[in-house]
Amino acid sequence: MNAFDPAISPLDWSELDDQAVKTIKALAADAVEKVGNGHPGTAISLAPAAYLLFQKTMRHDPADPHWVGRDRFVLSAGHSSLTIYLQLFLAGYGLEMEDIAALRTWGSKTPGHPEFRHTAGVEITTGPLGQGLASSVGFAMAARRERGLLDPDAAPGESPFDHHVYVIASDGDLQEGVTSEASSIAGHQQLGNLVVIWDDNKISIEDDTDIAFTEDVLARYEAYGWHTQRVDWTNGGTGYDEDVHGLAAALDAAKAETGKPSIIALRTIIGYPSPTKQNTGGIHGSAMGADEVAGLKVALGLDPEQSFAIADDVLAHTRAVAQHQSAQREAWETAFAAWKTATPAGAALLERLTAHELPEGWTDSLPVFEASAKGVATRAASGKVLTALADTLPELWGGSADLAGSNNTTMDGEPSFVPVEHATKKFPGHEYGRTLHFGIREHAMGSILNGIVLHGLTRPYGGTFLQFSDYMRASVRLAALMEIPSTFVWTHDSIGLGEDGPTHQPIEHLAALRAIPGLDVVRPADANETAWAWRTILENTANPAGLILTRQNVPTFERADAAADAAGFARGAYVLRDTEGTPDVVLVGTGSEVQLAVEASEALAADGIAARVVSMPCREWFDAQDAGYREQVLPAAVRARVSVEAGIRQGWHEIVGDAGRTVSIEHYGASADAETLYREFGITAEAVADAARASI
Amino acid sequence: MNAFDPAISPLDWSELDDQAVKTIKALAADAVEKVGNGHPGTAISLAPAAYLLFQKTMRHDPADPHWVGRDRFVLSAGHSSLTIYLQLFLAGYGLEMEDIAALRTWGSKTPGHPEFRHTAGVEITTGPLGQGLASSVGFAMAARRERGLLDPDAAPGESPFDHHVYVIASDGDLQEGVTSEASSIAGHQQLGNLVVIWDDNKISIEDDTDIAFTEDVLARYEAYGWHTQRVDWTNGGTGYDEDVHGLAAALDAAKAETGKPSIIALRTIIGYPSPTKQNTGGIHGSAMGADEVAGLKVALGLDPEQSFAIADDVLAHTRAVAQHQSAQREAWETAFAAWKTATPAGAALLERLTAHELPEGWTDSLPVFEASAKGVATRAASGKVLTALADTLPELWGGSADLAGSNNTTMDGEPSFVPVEHATKKFPGHEYGRTLHFGIREHAMGSILNGIVLHGLTRPYGGTFLQFSDYMRASVRLAALMEIPSTFVWTHDSIGLGEDGPTHQPIEHLAALRAIPGLDVVRPADANETAWAWRTILENTANPAGLILTRQNVPTFERADAAADAAGFARGAYVLRDTEGTPDVVLVGTGSEVQLAVEASEALAADGIAARVVSMPCREWFDAQDAGYREQVLPAAVRARVSVEAGIRQGWHEIVGDAGRTVSIEHYGASADAETLYREFGITAEAVADAARASI
Repeated sequence: MNAFDPAISPLDWSELDDQAVKTIKALAADAVEKVGNGHPGTAISLAPAAYLLFQKTMRHDPADPHWVGRDRFVLSAGHSSLTIYLQLFLAGYGLEMEDIAALRTWGSKTPGHPEFRHTAGVEITTGPLGQGLASSVGFAMAARRERGLLDPDAAPGESPFDHHVYVIASDGDLQEGVTSEASSIAGHQQLGNLVVIWDDNKISIEDDTDIAFTEDVLARYEAYGWHTQRVDWTNGGTGYDEDVHGLAAALDAAKAETGKPSIIALRTIIGYPSPTKQNTGGIHGSAMGADEVAGLKVALGLDPEQSFAIADDVLAHTRAVAQHQSAQREAWETAFAAWKTATPAGAALLERLTAHELPEGWTDSLPVFEASAKGVATRAASGKVLTALADTLPELWGGSADLAGSNNTTMDGEPSFVPVEHATKKFPGHEYGRTLHFGIREHAMGSILNGIVLHGLTRPYGGTFLQFSDYMRASVRLAALMEIPSTFVWTHDSIGLGEDGPTHQPIEHLAALRAIPGLDVVRPADANETAWAWRTILENTANPAGLILTRQNVPTFERADAAADAAGFARGAYVLRDTEGTPDVVLVGTGSEVQLAVEASEALAADGIAARVVSMPCREWFDAQDAGYREQVLPAAVRARVSVEAGIRQGWHEIVGDAGRTVSIEHYGASADAETLYREFGITAEAVADAARASI
Repeated sequence: MNAFDPAISPLDWSELDDQAVKTIKALAADAVEKVGNGHPGTAISLAPAAYLLFQKTMRHDPADPHWVGRDRFVLSAGHSSLTIYLQLFLAGYGLEMEDIAALRTWGSKTPGHPEFRHTAGVEITTGPLGQGLASSVGFAMAARRERGLLDPDAAPGESPFDHHVYVIASDGDLQEGVTSEASSIAGHQQLGNLVVIWDDNKISIEDDTDIAFTEDVLARYEAYGWHTQRVDWTNGGTGYDEDVHGLAAALDAAKAETGKPSIIALRTIIGYPSPTKQNTGGIHGSAMGADEVAGLKVALGLDPEQSFAIADDVLAHTRAVAQHQSAQREAWETAFAAWKTATPAGAALLERLTAHELPEGWTDSLPVFEASAKGVATRAASGKVLTALADTLPELWGGSADLAGSNNTTMDGEPSFVPVEHATKKFPGHEYGRTLHFGIREHAMGSILNGIVLHGLTRPYGGTFLQFSDYMRASVRLAALMEIPSTFVWTHDSIGLGEDGPTHQPIEHLAALRAIPGLDVVRPADANETAWAWRTILENTANPAGLILTRQNVPTFERADAAADAAGFARGAYVLRDTEGTPDVVLVGTGSEVQLAVEASEALAADGIAARVVSMPCREWFDAQDAGYREQVLPAAVRARVSVEAGIRQGWHEIVGDAGRTVSIEHYGASADAETLYREFGITAEAVADAARASI
């Protein structure tokens, strides 16, 4: 229980509240009926629970959807988008009846699944099952970290930054592996600020969930270290009573447990009280039909002739939700003002973090690496960059999915973010620590990073091998779709990882990640490019990035004009080595293969062939440049072009054109040392030079 | 307990067995030391357990690695590849000492992770954590289904087809979500033939697993419905005793439980008895160093001066493993011969399935669809194909990740594969049923399909929305890497799915899947192409396929020569509509966009422009054709080309060339009806015609 929370025990529940719930059920049926498709069932049966959250339980302000003190709500069951839209409409977040009636139509504020940035009050895009619940763990972790940055010494529940994260999850959310991973982390992290209501309706698209889902879910959550409760509105199957008082008591008990995340199994009947389709798969994902909608309204005591109807007094009542919480809000504002006065540095930090601005001069902290033929692995350079930024950017934090030492994702000397009792000899830490430990759970890592970003104030990163980006792909895509700056650190980026063999060697991953719209795939060629990569990524708050790093050493290039190169790097591609006049051929490389292009250019020069070398660390950034810059780097007149990248050629034809050549790998890797693999698979300077000659 | 199993209780364990285990530990250290990298720790500490399995517990025959009656072994902890290589060496599967010494080097039989098809005795490629354990659930399911096809009436444990699946799993395997999903399915399916040993060593790469992994694993597995046991070789932390008798007793108890899968938490000390590095993350994934290797040998009572040494009597003892089981093998052969005599149809079926041959004339069962402008969704056509094949191909079975009705993956009237007590009104079934229900667990579905294929006799398929191929990508890649014919049915293949919006609309997925080497991505354009797609996929046993199907209706094309079109289809691309003489432009489409190319060609014809329409259902098949056929379809002389596909253009430049145009979608979708989306996003016949004019 936090200070400033509205009281829900005893629950103040009136006839108007009952009417509001009935209205929600009818509107859910109307909205799906009108468009002819959608998911009415859960929106109908969960109406009382969602209403209880938005009208009685959660601390929020429809007039100020970004209020830093708000509780967060995550509709993990995103297909039941009406569950949130109808609450946003009733509470007054800006949705009106015409928006409800425009459900799932072009340009509406009420798309099929809730979309972040699209509809005020939606904290996260949900739809792919499991992602919401998994990201909610990130929300809850972020809340703790942010409190640690801003107000660590406040008594539990007394800080203006103490709040809860509420989740509504479906059977599907509970079956997805990403949720299992994240839920294990949530228990381990003892996230007492996380409260999940699981809609235990025993119906999914294949109807009775007994066909595939008979585990004991609450026992599983106990095993994860969660606080578990059961609220059964069917009274053991003997009837149906939407007992909001019982659910409120369970929510109270969940909040009282501050050392564990909570899950409440709420046994509902999907679509209740729809006369013939309740408790069937048929009401899950289809319009109900006019008769059934009418029957539902009759069962609710509503006029079956009316559609999209709400009584004025009901709407006035629900729109007053902020007024009902005004005393608590006032107390919160007082406490917040007191905190600002007492903590001017914290207040300044909060202001900066809220604006998503970087501190002035922060780039001075970035290391500069000496040119060196022996060089350094870009993963190692990345580790140095992170450590160098530790003091300057308190908002930057992250870790790895059990590959800390391999991913170089630990800032030297920073404590781990972990309950003290779970800190280890190797990783000391505490609840406000900085180094994240995801365990061997890449998918949860992705979703949790997204949740941390969405919570609002910090910049998290998480690392694994590039190969395992496959495990987290769904969450990476969501980051891109939501246009949020999650940072994925993917090391061991190619056959260069060597002996672990084809199960661990990325071949298609660069292409497959570039395929994701809105994801920046950044593959620096040397240590200095790695520093510039972090700079450009951190300066961008509009979309996610994958930072692709080598296991093996790569030379740190000599640079005549590092500032110019850095500027070019931020544009996605630049001329690293040039010739006098128009080149005979342009060699384009990324990451560890840029050195091969450089070597090849030297060999070609010895033959009197003038080759330009372009380092192209980020195709997406380069594509965003104006035609003039692109022409400057890749002159249309030079049709002889070669790309070199230790991965498939897919997508490179666009750069090299019909006259060009690609030096690539079109098959899986093998287990051997990196040098052997590069040689045997023909990713060599000689191959680049030969391709250049063939292209000219 | 099955008939024909070697007895392990009481365990016959001799001094030679002790010597063998010590030898394994030393060899593991030697092998990693020689190559300078790898994972010695687990191979050292698990030596007694692996030896117990291969020498005493499992029914197998090194001289006959494909023996249909063998137990299966899955090393889910693939990084500890020495754990299996050393057993294969000792048991005599063809590995010799020089192979052990060649660990992780180019061309060796002992790559970094075990690879299927590469090393005799390796049943599955493992390495990406979680995949082995998840696929083992497929092995166990396949064993039941195959028994149901061949010998359903035998008493439990009495059939020659009854056997066990043994798994060694690591902490990482237990943390991955794919394992959680699959383990829930295994409990639900009551897979009594599955036995997992979890190497509970409390060390992973980030050292003490307490930093990220503190859940109660066995309680979780109880919640899934598993039989759980604990064997603690540390005696509660008071010492260390590699009590193989205790582990054998636990294995016996696991086998005695025939109604539940079993997990045995085996508490070990990683690297024991390595003098200074045991029980540290340091011994997990690095060479130990010469001193430590010597110290290990001293601790084992072996000569520290000797490397790659094995006593003759030890090797002779372990190579005799088949002789030790000869009585049971003889009894098995007798029973098998009796079964063949009693069941000639079964014997014939077994012979056909073992040869991976399709029955003669099977294609006669394939439906032919009438031309129709209104047409039919390819997912619906696919459902009809499956139902039509049900009687002809008993080896074909499959289902969906809770989208049966949407994916059209159920063969009409076939029973579900589910314990009778979990059958539902909508899905009646029994333990030998055919329709698979994965629940909302796409990743486990992928891994389980792989396990079913690897078990050897059947052809499984599994469906979900194309969007959720992202969730199962790691298992899809493994199918391709293993070159096994898992079939993935991915419906709702584009913005054509409509109102569910951008979280459900694939944009980049076709490109991202085509990026996976060895995966056939097959996108039929109409109902008849869908039938041909199934035909070509089923005729291929060399690699996996993704079958990409529409939600919405597409016209069923008129065809002058269906046989020629079918032949062209199987080559990956063919001319669907042609012009007289050399065309002015070639329009290339896939799936639902082929109709737009046809429409555009008609509009162009009206303008006097001769356009050829190519349907290109499978880029991979087309790439495999000789240059002559490719030239026939895409004449080099015709540089004006347009591709049209409702997804990103990545990879299409290669087909259309510098003079060509692509009609594509480079951003996320939206929530609206399909028609609106196609129009608003410019995927129209007009856009194709305009692009054609621009290209000419």
